[in-house]
Amino acid sequence: QGNVAIYGTVDLALTRATSGGAATTGLKEGGHTASRIGFRGTEDLGGGLDAHFLLEAGYDPETGAGTLPGPGLAFSRQAFVGISGPWGQIDAGRMYTPMFYTLFRADPYGVNAVFSPLNLVSVTDAQPGISPFAARASGMLRYRTPASSPFLADIAYAPSKASEPSRRSGEFKGATFGWSAKPWYVAYGFQRARSGSGAAPVAVPAVTTYHALSASYQLADLTLYAHAMRTTVRHAAAPDARLLSLGASYPVTPFSSLVLEAAQRKLSGSERAQLAWTLGYDHHLSKRTALYARWLGLANRGGASATLAGVPVVADSGNGVRVLAAGIRHNF
Amino acid sequence: QGNVAIYGTVDLALTRATSGGAATTGLKEGGHTASRIGFRGTEDLGGGLDAHFLLEAGYDPETGAGTLPGPGLAFSRQAFVGISGPWGQIDAGRMYTPMFYTLFRADPYGVNAVFSPLNLVSVTDAQPGISPFAARASGMLRYRTPASSPFLADIAYAPSKASEPSRRSGEFKGATFGWSAKPWYVAYGFQRARSGSGAAPVAVPAVTTYHALSASYQLADLTLYAHAMRTTVRHAAAPDARLLSLGASYPVTPFSSLVLEAAQRKLSGSERAQLAWTLGYDHHLSKRTALYARWLGLANRGGASATLAGVPVVADSGNGVRVLAAGIRHNF
Amino acid sequence: QGNVAIYGTVDLALTRATSGGAATTGLKEGGHTASRIGFRGTEDLGGGLDAHFLLEAGYDPETGAGTLPGPGLAFSRQAFVGISGPWGQIDAGRMYTPMFYTLFRADPYGVNAVFSPLNLVSVTDAQPGISPFAARASGMLRYRTPASSPFLADIAYAPSKASEPSRRSGEFKGATFGWSAKPWYVAYGFQRARSGSGAAPVAVPAVTTYHALSASYQLADLTLYAHAMRTTVRHAAAPDARLLSLGASYPVTPFSSLVLEAAQRKLSGSERAQLAWTLGYDHHLSKRTALYARWLGLANRGGASATLAGVPVVADSGNGVRVLAAGIRHNF
Repeated sequence: QGNVAIYGTVDLALTRATSGGAATTGLKEGGHTASRIGFRGTEDLGGGLDAHFLLEAGYDPETGAGTLPGPGLAFSRQAFVGISGPWGQIDAGRMYTPMFYTLFRADPYGVNAVFSPLNLVSVTDAQPGISPFAARASGMLRYRTPASSPFLADIAYAPSKASEPSRRSGEFKGATFGWSAKPWYVAYGFQRARSGSGAAPVAVPAVTTYHALSASYQLADLTLYAHAMRTTVRHAAAPDARLLSLGASYPVTPFSSLVLEAAQRKLSGSERAQLAWTLGYDHHLSKRTALYARWLGLANRGGASATLAGVPVVADSGNGVRVLAAGIRHNF
Repeated sequence: QGNVAIYGTVDLALTRATSGGAATTGLKEGGHTASRIGFRGTEDLGGGLDAHFLLEAGYDPETGAGTLPGPGLAFSRQAFVGISGPWGQIDAGRMYTPMFYTLFRADPYGVNAVFSPLNLVSVTDAQPGISPFAARASGMLRYRTPASSPFLADIAYAPSKASEPSRRSGEFKGATFGWSAKPWYVAYGFQRARSGSGAAPVAVPAVTTYHALSASYQLADLTLYAHAMRTTVRHAAAPDARLLSLGASYPVTPFSSLVLEAAQRKLSGSERAQLAWTLGYDHHLSKRTALYARWLGLANRGGASATLAGVPVVADSGNGVRVLAAGIRHNF
Repeated sequence: QGNVAIYGTVDLALTRATSGGAATTGLKEGGHTASRIGFRGTEDLGGGLDAHFLLEAGYDPETGAGTLPGPGLAFSRQAFVGISGPWGQIDAGRMYTPMFYTLFRADPYGVNAVFSPLNLVSVTDAQPGISPFAARASGMLRYRTPASSPFLADIAYAPSKASEPSRRSGEFKGATFGWSAKPWYVAYGFQRARSGSGAAPVAVPAVTTYHALSASYQLADLTLYAHAMRTTVRHAAAPDARLLSLGASYPVTPFSSLVLEAAQRKLSGSERAQLAWTLGYDHHLSKRTALYARWLGLANRGGASATLAGVPVVADSGNGVRVLAAGIRHNF
């Protein structure tokens, strides 16, 4: 046990969600930070080298069930082992993708799965055949620059497990290059996924590529955030998508902060589009425990029926989504 | 890890179960206390306030599989986060119901799922359409009086997640009010569940209500226990059920105790009824480890075919159940 | 937490597997030691007695999913509780079988599920109706001699859970008797499984018996290993199988060792047979972290299509298997 630290988050919010005429009220998990429990450790190997591991399971404290995908618990949030040194770190296993971190570092909501408007990157409305954005990938080998370096490089590769008819079905690549030195953070990230998998290979895999240019800038107490993203597909009939976002966070008191972020998603050659925004307020009871409020809006244009926060939207209705939440997030 | 405590129970017994002509012998889990592993922690927020969380998974040490429902592990026994102060505590998540605690505090078997005769409250024989008794509920918001208070109040509510056709499908309410001061414990508890769920709403949900009046009294070394319970249903054709129980526990030596409890369940307008009893003996090897023996009998009347301890009973046979067990319970 | 220790292994290797014309490359878990996380504890009961428990879950760090069988986590690797004293220890639950330990103590690869040639014991090619070799069994009661004793006895029994038509469907028995005193280890182990289960009893269960004679001998730095095994079946049409193996390990440097092991499996009255071998190299970065390389070959004779390391082999093709791996194993 001297080798292992247990950590995690419990996060629940009383939430009211509406779309069209339908409304539901109840507890919903992870409005601030997705609920998780993890085990991690580091071993000093001498000579400036460390070995480390991390195993992290998601769960829903509303029911106790596992997530991603559940209902049993699994280390499907993160599971990796690696070695680090003054030159950076090498890891193997299931991890967040490099592009996820590109976005994460410039999102005041931390790409929170419920309330960040940046989740528009995961919307695939009117893009049939596309590989959905992957915040995580399995079976990756990865190199990252050390945490102390202002220059960021993060390169990951997950080989295809397919044999025939295509040896690249399910292949995954991703990278980030950036610069992080106060008050600036600027980074470019991309990831490319080929459709199919080792179990179900595809003769000519569709190739989906996500690009992101992300930045944040700290102006006294105010922090500003911006992203420009683009999705392109080869060997599939899906149009390109473009995503723009702007955000700001401001500490109203030493223990509380106000956050506003908005994002829009547009397709080439389609009227279907989305605009999403979230207004948030955090009040810290301690370093580990916070109360929070969130107000999310999503507008669907051109008869689109994308959703955020898991709210059901009637297909091709153009209905929007509104979600109001007041919750507690406790880290352990 | 300074923030998290790991706790749990491993409990296995060599068990012989008979019903009609069928008999099986083998290891069975949880004859004293259901096997579980949990993670919990408390954070001092200052000003007399604490934040706390608890995550608890059940498992079967016979096979290692998760329970409730398994086969994977999940925090489906309990998963909640809350804040406590001198005024009591507020929690959110999946928890035991208030009425479960009403029974638990006056059951020498602690409502053990295998051997407590109080499990007759979970029998639904000849009550079609009833919502089975829930020892736990998901998505609850709850207020409880502080542990130091002799006056007990425990009020919980889980809103329906349904939208149409009924916004109350799956709604859950429960409460307990009582007094606990040695040598007395007296409490009234109830819970009300509406049929259906958010995923499968019902136009006119059946409303099942459980009531319990529970008491215990300590007379020198002897402790006496009694319960009176009633189940009523609206918008369903199920008859009412009444349950009465009596129990006693006595420390035979400083390290061992003898426990006897019996309960009967009767229906209005039906001959089908049950009588259950358990004789138990506990021998403590230490504070954390005990050996135990249990002898349970269940009689079905009027051709009923209810069961306890998971023993298969032939439908409408009137067969009874006998279970003998000798086991070990180890807390960690 | 003072009562519970967390332990485990993360093991991933970049692996290339070929059989016939098919080849796959990717991360694969557990090439040195199967990935696991466990919780265990011991309590001093006084008088030379201890109570203990162990709960162990397998997982795949490539995806984070649970194993055995997954996808959720479960304590299906091991889950038991017991009491130990100067006379040995008694346990109940799910455990490795006695015969598994017979093999384990004389296998330089520790019966590793991916690369040990001893996994030929789990091959059932051309033995229809046989109960596959069980490295673990559920619901066992067990006695073992104390760890300090050079004489080894390990006796386990899992009663059938069946009632009708046969009260012995699914019954399991196993035992090991041996002697372990440097430089020698010699042991005989067996296990017997009756087909069917409590849920699916069989009128006349097939009775599969595995026998093993295992030995190792340390000659200065060189350690030699040998096994002779036999499988026989009653009440099924399966022929007998015989398995022979030889192995050696040698510390090339104080921090690294070379291991070679080969095994063959032959059937009475069938041309179908297997020969497997593995060449391995371990380099220890620390006590807890090692880098390793493995090269496994499997030859199928007489049109057999057995496999090792989970590599798909075309049915009745006689194709062999080759697996090359370079990986990291980190214990915590």
